Amino acid sequence: MTSAPHYGAAFARWREGAPSWTAYTQHAFVQGLADGRLPRDAFLHYLKQDYVFLIHFSRAWALAVAKADTLAEMTVAAATVNALVNEEMSLHVGLCEAAGISQSTLEATAERDENLAYTRYVLEAGYSGDFLDLLAALAPCVFGYGEIGLLTAAQRSSDTYGDWIETYSGEDYQGLCRSVGELVDGALERRLGQDYAASPRFGHLQARFETATRLEVGFWGMGLRP
Amino acid sequence: MTSAPHYGAAFARWREGAPSWTAYTQHAFVQGLADGRLPRDAFLHYLKQDYVFLIHFSRAWALAVAKADTLAEMTVAAATVNALVNEEMSLHVGLCEAAGISQSTLEATAERDENLAYTRYVLEAGYSGDFLDLLAALAPCVFGYGEIGLLTAAQRSSDTYGDWIETYSGEDYQGLCRSVGELVDGALERRLGQDYAASPRFGHLQARFETATRLEVGFWGMGLRP
Amino acid sequence: MTSAPHYGAAFARWREGAPSWTAYTQHAFVQGLADGRLPRDAFLHYLKQDYVFLIHFSRAWALAVAKADTLAEMTVAAATVNALVNEEMSLHVGLCEAAGISQSTLEATAERDENLAYTRYVLEAGYSGDFLDLLAALAPCVFGYGEIGLLTAAQRSSDTYGDWIETYSGEDYQGLCRSVGELVDGALERRLGQDYAASPRFGHLQARFETATRLEVGFWGMGLRP
Amino acid sequence: MTSAPHYGAAFARWREGAPSWTAYTQHAFVQGLADGRLPRDAFLHYLKQDYVFLIHFSRAWALAVAKADTLAEMTVAAATVNALVNEEMSLHVGLCEAAGISQSTLEATAERDENLAYTRYVLEAGYSGDFLDLLAALAPCVFGYGEIGLLTAAQRSSDTYGDWIETYSGEDYQGLCRSVGELVDGALERRLGQDYAASPRFGHLQARFETATRLEVGFWGMGLRP
Repeated sequence: MTSAPHYGAAFARWREGAPSWTAYTQHAFVQGLADGRLPRDAFLHYLKQDYVFLIHFSRAWALAVAKADTLAEMTVAAATVNALVNEEMSLHVGLCEAAGISQSTLEATAERDENLAYTRYVLEAGYSGDFLDLLAALAPCVFGYGEIGLLTAAQRSSDTYGDWIETYSGEDYQGLCRSVGELVDGALERRLGQDYAASPRFGHLQARFETATRLEVGFWGMGLRP
Repeated sequence: MTSAPHYGAAFARWREGAPSWTAYTQHAFVQGLADGRLPRDAFLHYLKQDYVFLIHFSRAWALAVAKADTLAEMTVAAATVNALVNEEMSLHVGLCEAAGISQSTLEATAERDENLAYTRYVLEAGYSGDFLDLLAALAPCVFGYGEIGLLTAAQRSSDTYGDWIETYSGEDYQGLCRSVGELVDGALERRLGQDYAASPRFGHLQARFETATRLEVGFWGMGLRP
Repeated sequence: MTSAPHYGAAFARWREGAPSWTAYTQHAFVQGLADGRLPRDAFLHYLKQDYVFLIHFSRAWALAVAKADTLAEMTVAAATVNALVNEEMSLHVGLCEAAGISQSTLEATAERDENLAYTRYVLEAGYSGDFLDLLAALAPCVFGYGEIGLLTAAQRSSDTYGDWIETYSGEDYQGLCRSVGELVDGALERRLGQDYAASPRFGHLQARFETATRLEVGFWGMGLRP
Repeated sequence: MTSAPHYGAAFARWREGAPSWTAYTQHAFVQGLADGRLPRDAFLHYLKQDYVFLIHFSRAWALAVAKADTLAEMTVAAATVNALVNEEMSLHVGLCEAAGISQSTLEATAERDENLAYTRYVLEAGYSGDFLDLLAALAPCVFGYGEIGLLTAAQRSSDTYGDWIETYSGEDYQGLCRSVGELVDGALERRLGQDYAASPRFGHLQARFETATRLEVGFWGMGLRP
């Protein structure tokens, strides 16, 4: 496994303990983004599904605001909701328009089961569990896209999907990963103490992280089957 | 489509409006239960996944108790939780033991994605929506197994899966379907009035019912792939 | 009763149907803000409790983002969270500092039972019900402060609490009330149709609005008992 | 403080760390039950409010089923829901009938704010937190009534409220307290390890326990004000 980007101590542990992490971050879909060989219709299909994904992902981050313990936790989560709803969604709509997908087409996208499985898993983890369960389920998407952004930027051999690569390797998104990393580390320490990794809870959170990672692999696979 | 079993007025409408209903109730898996040609390992694989399913399904019915408006609604939902946790689970453990699957094997079952997708969809529908959203998502499983019980009992040409068929066509399970049918009809009238089907809400609930039905189709499909 | 501010059709109905509305909007505490006779220690005590209130109120609006059906609904709710967490909270911290209450004092405020009762009622309405239940429970605070802002601005005979009065009668806050009013009307029509007031659901929502209004009366009463 | 009944290790700690425990378990209302001097109308008023309380308390236990991690946890919580909905509620209806309060009067009871505050606090703790948050908020009622049952049985100097005293000091209820005690201890160990009391989480749970205890004091106080 390549070394982990610096998104905090918990991420480094969770990533190390997640058997599906490589299958996710080095998926054929990702390779296709880096070398430009990903078929166009697969990319457009992915963009449309990702639009639906982002809506539910934003809802999950909003749930994190409701489940936070401190104003500082709320503020980071609320800023993430804001970044997703008011910035990333518009960016997405823009990317899609440039690719010939109108907003009304986007909104009419039929959600695929692999997409539904992932977002409902995350939301349900949050509703049934607490703030930590929710963060562990949200983490693979946030951090994985950061790592994939850096990997594809390093391996890039084509401009075809350059916009996508620049979005996720760019300073804005990397900064978001670092601030979410601090949120996760702080939330764990606050609840489970400095030695949080020794708590049985950490094992349960590790399992949540792995399940969400596995569902990310399924999402990429779905992306290759327009 | 064959005629609907008498599980109430809302079920008859939802079933009529769900494009995937036939694919669900007349799935190859179901045919294989009726004529005994379902491979044994598919059945055992299904039983193990269904054990995991029942745990989450029981949790969803418990959530219905929490989300009910009246003591009468709570009582029906609580009786269903009780029937699931204290009776159907044991029945299931018994069926599995008879088939050579120990309880510890059952408990160690790795949840398949099609299984996870379905139960998290139902639970999330309940948490994010209200009692009606939850009932609409729970309905395809409860009523569908009732209808499939009756269909397989009528078409049965083998004793191989006779126990399964007798469980769901039997009076206990059919009575449960009728009492849940009354719960659903009453809950709709209480919230949306006698003309509930004219409310936009009913269309949204219909969509939930269809999505859950589609996820049932996915569950049968998974059952055929041990 | 004085005429309702123009915050939409549902608000006008709910306000009309809430026996406690006048007790809330014309409470002795409110009169004391307008004529400047509210004791200073009651005002400071109120500001501290309101700080705790705003945290939970922001969590409830975040829950509304998670429970919304459409991107448009999510956007208004997310903007409200943002306004609360990033603007109103800071404004509050500022008002408190000007009044000699440090941020650490604010954060150490012990929550009073009348405060706890109100916010947990709102949050639980949202968790157990749907988006409409949550909006009906959130409405009395949003709209009531708008109306009280206008009333106190009209009746004002002292500058003592001028900042407070100007905040809630000001165009920013009044604009928020109008946009939440549109959100509420649209959410009702989308779910219950144009004739939403004829649905039994509307009666249940009216009851939620009245309960939350009654808890606002309790909050003012608590404000008078430092 | 008198010694704790044997309801488990976590209860002993929480009770020790809750400043309001004595005010709750030795409240004037409780003394009045033991010596029979509690005015009849206060008792009847309490019974009616307690009926409303039990409905929401049952909903909270049902939420615990949904939030449990293991089948064993689900089974205890589901049995508690069942005991509450199908047994304690009927017992309550019977006690009320014997006291001249019809079921329809019971159902028409207007919920008092002290009652609402308590149950919504518990439910919201469960929704926003996890299984442990919910148990910590549920614990003061379950265990406190057990302890009060034993105290009033020991101090009893009148038969006036003998039925009530016998219900809570009786073996059925005491057995429930012990089984909930085991559930709590097991749930803490499973999530936070054997040294759970050293986790910061335990401090947060202690705070929830104290808040719920304080709200019990408010409930008794309300009981004295028909």
